[in-house]
Amino acid sequence: MDHTGERNHMRNIRLLLQYEGTRYQGWQRQQAAERTIQGKLEALLSKMCKEPIEIQGSGRTDAGVHALGQVANFHTNSEMPAEEMREYMNTYLPDDIAVLQVTEAAPRFHSRLNATGKRYIYRVINSGVPDVFLRRYAIQIPEELDLDAMRSAAEYLCGEHDFKSFTSTKKGKKSTVRRIEEIKITQEDDLISFSFTGNGFLYHMVRILMGTLLEVGMGKRDPETIPALIEAKNREEAGPLMPAKGLTLAEIYFS
Amino acid sequence: MDHTGERNHMRNIRLLLQYEGTRYQGWQRQQAAERTIQGKLEALLSKMCKEPIEIQGSGRTDAGVHALGQVANFHTNSEMPAEEMREYMNTYLPDDIAVLQVTEAAPRFHSRLNATGKRYIYRVINSGVPDVFLRRYAIQIPEELDLDAMRSAAEYLCGEHDFKSFTSTKKGKKSTVRRIEEIKITQEDDLISFSFTGNGFLYHMVRILMGTLLEVGMGKRDPETIPALIEAKNREEAGPLMPAKGLTLAEIYFS
Repeated sequence: MDHTGERNHMRNIRLLLQYEGTRYQGWQRQQAAERTIQGKLEALLSKMCKEPIEIQGSGRTDAGVHALGQVANFHTNSEMPAEEMREYMNTYLPDDIAVLQVTEAAPRFHSRLNATGKRYIYRVINSGVPDVFLRRYAIQIPEELDLDAMRSAAEYLCGEHDFKSFTSTKKGKKSTVRRIEEIKITQEDDLISFSFTGNGFLYHMVRILMGTLLEVGMGKRDPETIPALIEAKNREEAGPLMPAKGLTLAEIYFS
Repeated sequence: MDHTGERNHMRNIRLLLQYEGTRYQGWQRQQAAERTIQGKLEALLSKMCKEPIEIQGSGRTDAGVHALGQVANFHTNSEMPAEEMREYMNTYLPDDIAVLQVTEAAPRFHSRLNATGKRYIYRVINSGVPDVFLRRYAIQIPEELDLDAMRSAAEYLCGEHDFKSFTSTKKGKKSTVRRIEEIKITQEDDLISFSFTGNGFLYHMVRILMGTLLEVGMGKRDPETIPALIEAKNREEAGPLMPAKGLTLAEIYFS
């Protein structure tokens, strides 16, 4: 069966999605009937389109990770107008998942393969007092943080490097080389936001980079040691994996 | 028993509080063992101080209403330092209530009686698309809103008036005269924030003012009809009571 040929006659629908990851086991559908974003969306889309639907997400967010601008696409024979799809989905999806846009994509558009970059945000409440309204989207760190030191460390991390020290993936033949375009650290009152832009991120990479940067911020690690840490290609030398709830997939870039 | 005299020998502790009202039946402790902010705080404070504690809040927020800066006070014989109290409370309170500050107040300080003004914020997501991250703190209105018309109506509402048309309290001898200092309407992307500052607000007043302003924004009511609506002193002529979740008690002022 010429599956590709068949798809060329189907519509390719692109979704821009927002979700709060708190209640979910991550993006990726799993074998058991567990709570995943992909699983929720596919179940609803299959009902809406009256045919089995599989969706492709641009990135697989982990359990507890949020998204401001996840992109996904699916192929369908349904003739329902895009705008109507959006309304249908927002009516029946749980209130922690929202569809911001539904658009017709080129037949060969693929959310994951065509993505050329991503931006993640990690949020830290730098205070001895918890923040009730950000408690699901930020971690709390009472210790004073040296932002200048963290910015110096961040500069060493930018550029193309083998980030093997910063991933939880044990072994495998896949390349662990990635390019970080920018790490931007901004502060507004007690809230410190870390924005990571790059061509791709390895499994757990942003959260381990955060653990490392925070060690620098607390004076436990010198910014100048970062090049040697990258060179080591050893997960055990990097900082701890920070909690999922502080992480939000902010944007996906396509060329 | 000279209760006042006794209290003069006790410490008077002032709290600055934040809470998400979603899970609660409002501030005020109720007879049954229901979920209230006051009830939660008193139970914990009584344990902490090893004596029965009653607290006074500056305002009684309704079920589902949030607070960024609620003020409350209580009298105690406990000698625990204020800073330690704050840490104790933030350790044992549920994560939707936080104590921002604990300070020693003058012996006669009373959160409700000494409050000279309050500020509330009401949030509206003006979009056909829900906002996942603000869904607990804002209501969603898809219709286009005329901000200029709402601002004109808001001007008529400012000043000292009898706000009988804007409260759910049926009858009673208490004055329904209040003074609104300012109603500020600001927009940031899809989020419209309404800030109400005044010397006091009647039961449901901000939420009924919001229902009225939104009718103006949707073109269902003319800004110029507001003086007559105030004059009518009739709840049935004002707009609907808007949902609690959009409302946040932002600040309490003391002279």
